[in-house]
Amino acid sequence: MKVLAIVGSLRENSFSEQVARAAGDLSPEGVELEIFEGLDSIPAYSADHDPAYDGPEAVAAEVENLRDSITAADALLIVTPEYNAGPPGYLKNAIDWASRPHKASSLAGKPAAIVSQSPMPFGGIWANQSIRKSLTITGTPTVERELAIGKVDEKIEDGRLVEDQARTDLTALMAELNELVAVIAGQQAEPAAMA
Amino acid sequence: MKVLAIVGSLRENSFSEQVARAAGDLSPEGVELEIFEGLDSIPAYSADHDPAYDGPEAVAAEVENLRDSITAADALLIVTPEYNAGPPGYLKNAIDWASRPHKASSLAGKPAAIVSQSPMPFGGIWANQSIRKSLTITGTPTVERELAIGKVDEKIEDGRLVEDQARTDLTALMAELNELVAVIAGQQAEPAAMA
Repeated sequence: MKVLAIVGSLRENSFSEQVARAAGDLSPEGVELEIFEGLDSIPAYSADHDPAYDGPEAVAAEVENLRDSITAADALLIVTPEYNAGPPGYLKNAIDWASRPHKASSLAGKPAAIVSQSPMPFGGIWANQSIRKSLTITGTPTVERELAIGKVDEKIEDGRLVEDQARTDLTALMAELNELVAVIAGQQAEPAAMA
Repeated sequence: MKVLAIVGSLRENSFSEQVARAAGDLSPEGVELEIFEGLDSIPAYSADHDPAYDGPEAVAAEVENLRDSITAADALLIVTPEYNAGPPGYLKNAIDWASRPHKASSLAGKPAAIVSQSPMPFGGIWANQSIRKSLTITGTPTVERELAIGKVDEKIEDGRLVEDQARTDLTALMAELNELVAVIAGQQAEPAAMA
């Protein structure tokens, strides 16, 4: 199983990136986690630049790369900080581009998990919930587990997530994502069983 | 009174832009409304590019322009569409840049009003509420009135907001913003009265 991690912080060696790497380490056997590169160069969404509306024939190369990367992955892991009670704007902008065209987008039906982190006690839960709400609209099935890692700066040492509870929670999140992929693949492979 | 309108849609001649122009027309006498240009070229926020953290000595010129425009205005009007149950990402990104440095930002104490619009019945209320939540964190006082214009496509003719209720509501919103500016200016001018 290939998981594409979208790291919602652009700071080099950010807490979000370190949490994403930990998620890779703590995933079930057979899971390969890759971090998406290029979030910072995705242009601002405009219907005037979107072929689904009045735009040109093709989207910008950076948007195409994002969509192709999502399509090529079996699942998504979104790791996000919280800015002003919500997700970083450029992360939401990437979700908006990826969500087009409506109902035929790279996000439609793609299993996903969300983890937020913050040095604050609540772990960026507002950003987390905001992304989940958006993914409901984009038709992206998410695992039930809601993981917000608070006081993350105290839980990372030398770039490694070391705190036991956070490691346990992240392990469980990745196991749930793995299961969700299997469940959805099963549904797609055996439609007759649903009759 | 100078109101800076931040139009959260980049599409040329968007519904949001038309609503912003209507807000200018429906404002109390003496109010000048200017639409901010350059939202599409604001770079993605990164602490690595932010002097308040580990960044260079100055922010990008586009960010400086945004902050200066907000500082020069007496009030803000944010007009937004809704994408995937939230505000457009690049609009949130602009708010995030404008919100730095913490507690000394261009948004701190700046009176603001929010109006969302959508061709859908609920008028983008989730985007509206999400921005209000962010402005709470940025220390930006907002008028109480919550205005979400639904079915906006039926209320605009030849680029002009013509529907009576929407015009009445927008008139009331701009009057409230005008009052909020006066109240806050009064508080700043007469601190002794608060003792």
